[in-house]
Amino acid sequence: MVQPLNKNIQEGDNPDLTSERLTSTFNTNDMAAQIWGSEKRARRRREISAKIAQMPELHDSKPLPFMTREEKIMESARKLTILTEKMGQIIDPTDPAELYHLNNEVLGLEGNPMALHGVMFIPALSAQASDEQQAKWLPRALRREIIGTYAQTELGHGTNLQNLETTATYDLATQEFVLHTPQITALKWWPGNLGKSSNYAVVVAHMIIKGKNYGPHPFMVQLRDEKTHEPLPGITIGDIGPKMAYNIVDNGFLGFNKYRIPRTNLLMRHTKVEADGTYIKPPHAKINYSAMVHVRAYMLTGQAIMLASALNIATRYSSVRRQGQIDKSQPEVKVLEYQTQQHRLFPSIARAYAFQFAGAETVKLYEHVLKEMKSGNVSLMADLHALTSGLKSVVTYQTGEGIEQARMACGGHGYSMASYISEIYGVAIGGCTYEGENMVMLLQLARYLVKSAALVKSGQSSQLGPLVAYLGAKSEPTSLIDRIPNAGFTEYVKTFQHVAKRQTLKAAEMFFGLMEKGEKREIAWNKCSVELNRASRLHTRLFIVEAFVRRVNEIADIRIKEALTDLLHLHVNYELLDIASYALEDGFLSASQLDYIRDQVYLYLGKIRPNAVSLLDSWEFSDIELRSVLGRRDGNVYENLFKWAKSSPLNKTDVLPSVTQYLKPMMEKARL
Amino acid sequence: MVQPLNKNIQEGDNPDLTSERLTSTFNTNDMAAQIWGSEKRARRRREISAKIAQMPELHDSKPLPFMTREEKIMESARKLTILTEKMGQIIDPTDPAELYHLNNEVLGLEGNPMALHGVMFIPALSAQASDEQQAKWLPRALRREIIGTYAQTELGHGTNLQNLETTATYDLATQEFVLHTPQITALKWWPGNLGKSSNYAVVVAHMIIKGKNYGPHPFMVQLRDEKTHEPLPGITIGDIGPKMAYNIVDNGFLGFNKYRIPRTNLLMRHTKVEADGTYIKPPHAKINYSAMVHVRAYMLTGQAIMLASALNIATRYSSVRRQGQIDKSQPEVKVLEYQTQQHRLFPSIARAYAFQFAGAETVKLYEHVLKEMKSGNVSLMADLHALTSGLKSVVTYQTGEGIEQARMACGGHGYSMASYISEIYGVAIGGCTYEGENMVMLLQLARYLVKSAALVKSGQSSQLGPLVAYLGAKSEPTSLIDRIPNAGFTEYVKTFQHVAKRQTLKAAEMFFGLMEKGEKREIAWNKCSVELNRASRLHTRLFIVEAFVRRVNEIADIRIKEALTDLLHLHVNYELLDIASYALEDGFLSASQLDYIRDQVYLYLGKIRPNAVSLLDSWEFSDIELRSVLGRRDGNVYENLFKWAKSSPLNKTDVLPSVTQYLKPMMEKARL
Repeated sequence: MVQPLNKNIQEGDNPDLTSERLTSTFNTNDMAAQIWGSEKRARRRREISAKIAQMPELHDSKPLPFMTREEKIMESARKLTILTEKMGQIIDPTDPAELYHLNNEVLGLEGNPMALHGVMFIPALSAQASDEQQAKWLPRALRREIIGTYAQTELGHGTNLQNLETTATYDLATQEFVLHTPQITALKWWPGNLGKSSNYAVVVAHMIIKGKNYGPHPFMVQLRDEKTHEPLPGITIGDIGPKMAYNIVDNGFLGFNKYRIPRTNLLMRHTKVEADGTYIKPPHAKINYSAMVHVRAYMLTGQAIMLASALNIATRYSSVRRQGQIDKSQPEVKVLEYQTQQHRLFPSIARAYAFQFAGAETVKLYEHVLKEMKSGNVSLMADLHALTSGLKSVVTYQTGEGIEQARMACGGHGYSMASYISEIYGVAIGGCTYEGENMVMLLQLARYLVKSAALVKSGQSSQLGPLVAYLGAKSEPTSLIDRIPNAGFTEYVKTFQHVAKRQTLKAAEMFFGLMEKGEKREIAWNKCSVELNRASRLHTRLFIVEAFVRRVNEIADIRIKEALTDLLHLHVNYELLDIASYALEDGFLSASQLDYIRDQVYLYLGKIRPNAVSLLDSWEFSDIELRSVLGRRDGNVYENLFKWAKSSPLNKTDVLPSVTQYLKPMMEKARL
Repeated sequence: MVQPLNKNIQEGDNPDLTSERLTSTFNTNDMAAQIWGSEKRARRRREISAKIAQMPELHDSKPLPFMTREEKIMESARKLTILTEKMGQIIDPTDPAELYHLNNEVLGLEGNPMALHGVMFIPALSAQASDEQQAKWLPRALRREIIGTYAQTELGHGTNLQNLETTATYDLATQEFVLHTPQITALKWWPGNLGKSSNYAVVVAHMIIKGKNYGPHPFMVQLRDEKTHEPLPGITIGDIGPKMAYNIVDNGFLGFNKYRIPRTNLLMRHTKVEADGTYIKPPHAKINYSAMVHVRAYMLTGQAIMLASALNIATRYSSVRRQGQIDKSQPEVKVLEYQTQQHRLFPSIARAYAFQFAGAETVKLYEHVLKEMKSGNVSLMADLHALTSGLKSVVTYQTGEGIEQARMACGGHGYSMASYISEIYGVAIGGCTYEGENMVMLLQLARYLVKSAALVKSGQSSQLGPLVAYLGAKSEPTSLIDRIPNAGFTEYVKTFQHVAKRQTLKAAEMFFGLMEKGEKREIAWNKCSVELNRASRLHTRLFIVEAFVRRVNEIADIRIKEALTDLLHLHVNYELLDIASYALEDGFLSASQLDYIRDQVYLYLGKIRPNAVSLLDSWEFSDIELRSVLGRRDGNVYENLFKWAKSSPLNKTDVLPSVTQYLKPMMEKARL
């Protein structure tokens, strides 16, 4: 017998899901290699998942939605300490991708008590502490003798770092910095794991020496006694309270009442302060830039994973849920048969792939730019910073949108925590706000675009960076998407370019015009900001399309290439339809071309249908990682929903205390 | 001194919020009368809120986000029993609007243990029980001797009622119906308060008599012992587990193992079954229709309230949050100064008003149609059913979108449960799914539109109902929105009509075309369903615009009229821009008109700015009802955020058990 190309079929599976898998036109292991970057990485993921599956001590002891916040934190700390012991048996701990996968699967997406330790505290020490300081603190942090975080944002200030209010005033007499939060708004607020778990933090405060403010600087600060874990005198600290999601993390507040730390706790890799208060400037100032770019580049794959997870759940469930009849003589159909359902899910599948590919490309670009920087070429970082600002914003927003559509595609059961999609949404949508609020991010990209537009305007197009070169190129008068057979995706890319270019130049012209009329720069900027952000979005969506096209062009495996080409067809047509008004406005697209685009969307919804489940199976999320009754690999949804519900907390007793104490007496009284 | 027009200013308020209120161009009490339908109703709301403010026993004993689900249910039951006693002191209990307001304010939007009793159980008995049955059960339900719900949806079936699997088989020998759930998917699943609180339910089951299935019918079923509240033998019952939101309600599951009820428990107002099994058909079958229409019409105001609540929180907070500088020589500005922030919030303010007005009009229409029905004219109910299907879908979706934008406009603090916006979102977005899944709803409207299009096609436009008459009218070749000064909103309405008409006729033509090619009806329908739903959305958005225009035209008070006219200007331009591609496609709108529309949007964002806070203050949500630290009337946000956080559950102890049990031993071991 021929082996099915989808490798996820097992005995006992719901036949409605198996039938979907049997129509796969590609090998899901090969697709996994595309998604995760190499055959080896995909294989390692499977091996790691298999090991975890055999270690029950690493599984949730009961479904997370049944736990209180305190219980979830306890459960997470339990697993965390086991991982600290046994990590080396499961993964290569020096491989960040393996560590990431292990964390996702075992600890899950709701965070953990050391979520910031590895991704913020240790990197901050590595980047900003001097060699001597690193020798003192890094080994302790790496061995987990101490738990740390990074405390920058305050109650009153997030985006505008220059106006942070916490101060570190140098006391020459004792050679100490005195940390102080002069009012409530100066409290550090939001840093993850600051509230309860960490005993150290890198704290950002305005450094004041001899009355002069040198601006925000990072300090290593002990928060709690290492033995008792009690807060140290002069420290006000706690959890900021429950959040929309991500509640295993104890985001915290932190106040200082003239709290003293040694001078040598200023992180001195770049800036130095000598005992007599002499301030030594860093050689060049833009060092923090690359950390932000790094985080934003890596956020993309995180978002792609969450989008694909939600779609995986919804698409599997849509294959086993039968409701209504299309042909009255036939039994009820899978809800995946409905065009509206396909239209809800499939364009987002394309986006999940697009985001994953764009993310991988951005990470590579980042590594390339880092190398260039080391050999003195720092100019590229600004380009990349602009790009990642836009990507972070567009990807987080579209991911949230796609996850919610996936949840709603599951009907009522999507609303149950048994789907787990609302938790995924809660975590993913946070990405629209943290690491730079999305509107602010788009405006950062817009600054770069307007500078580029100014180059075009002044005839200096040759100086445009590679990511914006299209702004200076000539474009055809009309799109040729439906005119050139076998043009691949070239004409689509040109159409996206035309649209992004037109909006960028138009918004920039609006800005220049206001300036010429005598408007102050920042006021003119504010008056154009909605139009500028539109330009940023179009530029970013163009990049995502291009990254998807580049990846598909690279693929050798014919089956994989065909399946992803279908997905790309859906992507370019769906996205173009979404932004059609920009292209219709100046006649670049005609009404008949728009009809063609619509027809293409429906055509490719149908083509993707037989591969839909397999395109998501290929991400190879285990049931342990998905944490979803609706999204189970085996598709045996209903019996497991019932099992899940029966074991939920309210069903511990037949008669709730609220009934005994209130409702029963109320009814009895009424009967008298 | 002149009294400020905004009536919400008090001593001790944050001056940044007061300054917003001082710029109001209208009296907020007068605006409240517009929102709530009359001066009297607005005044009664204020009086009720004032009474509640003075009854501490009706306030949350601590913030709801600090409670476990069990604690929230207990707290809600506590307040519910007090309300049962004291309701008459606060409101006129026979006035549904007063009852609704009281529930919203005291019990809140997360539901309560009797949420379904008043809105589903009692109405079901009233509509479907015979006079004799009503005499037996209704007084007991009204006195709250029993608690009931309505159980229809099953684990395996929601939308497709005909395929429900629970059966009620008539046993002639004992004159009993035997209720049975033959498999897991037949379990009743989702009904509110079914799991734990109710001891009775109206249960919908397929009625089988002498081997013949008469389809789904309603039965009165006792679930639990009235004395002990224990489930009765033959009944499997429980809570379905935690949900995305609305967790004070114990949505439940219910299974029957050959559970017997008397024949006379079939609700016999319409259908009757005699002792010998003789089935007597109801005089006409469409009786349930109006109940659905009723619920959907009333959903609109519920959604408008939730949208306005979230916007109220975000707009107040945006007036006290200062971040960044627009003019570098000035202090940090209120974030409400940013155009991007205004663009996030103000179009949704317009929608909240539009939904409220459209909702009020729909309720009036419903009452009119009910009267017509009593005098024998049943045709209008179909029109109204189609309209409410579309409205339910568009309004719930746009409400969710607007609430999330409001939350994100609050930056990081919006993500905290202290904002309470994510809870509002969780409850509101449920509306996209319950009472008819949105895609299905849009397709129901589409059926009506396609029928109407067929009338147009066959030259029978004169037979079109009043809500679709525009489909048969001639339209100009191009829009005149920027050509006719002082045309009011007529040209805008015409443009929306043109667009809705074009898409409706086009989608219908696509459907007719497929049928002509020999496609089966339901398959053709499925292939057009995305385009059909687009038509449904455009038709609905047209109705919302028209309802808004009609309301503004009715207003006499000049200040109110001016303020709402500004809001309406924003609305028509923003909405038109959003659907512009449909109007650009055939050249009905030109590029220059699109520029005009954009300029109008920015113009009216600026005009609305001084009234923004007052437009939301006018909804007069009390702090007790809003449950939001960010949205406090007094604007004193930061100190109260700190107070809130300090009292949150994790801060009961300085050292968490998770640290003592796991993290501390881990660190100690590493130090050895």
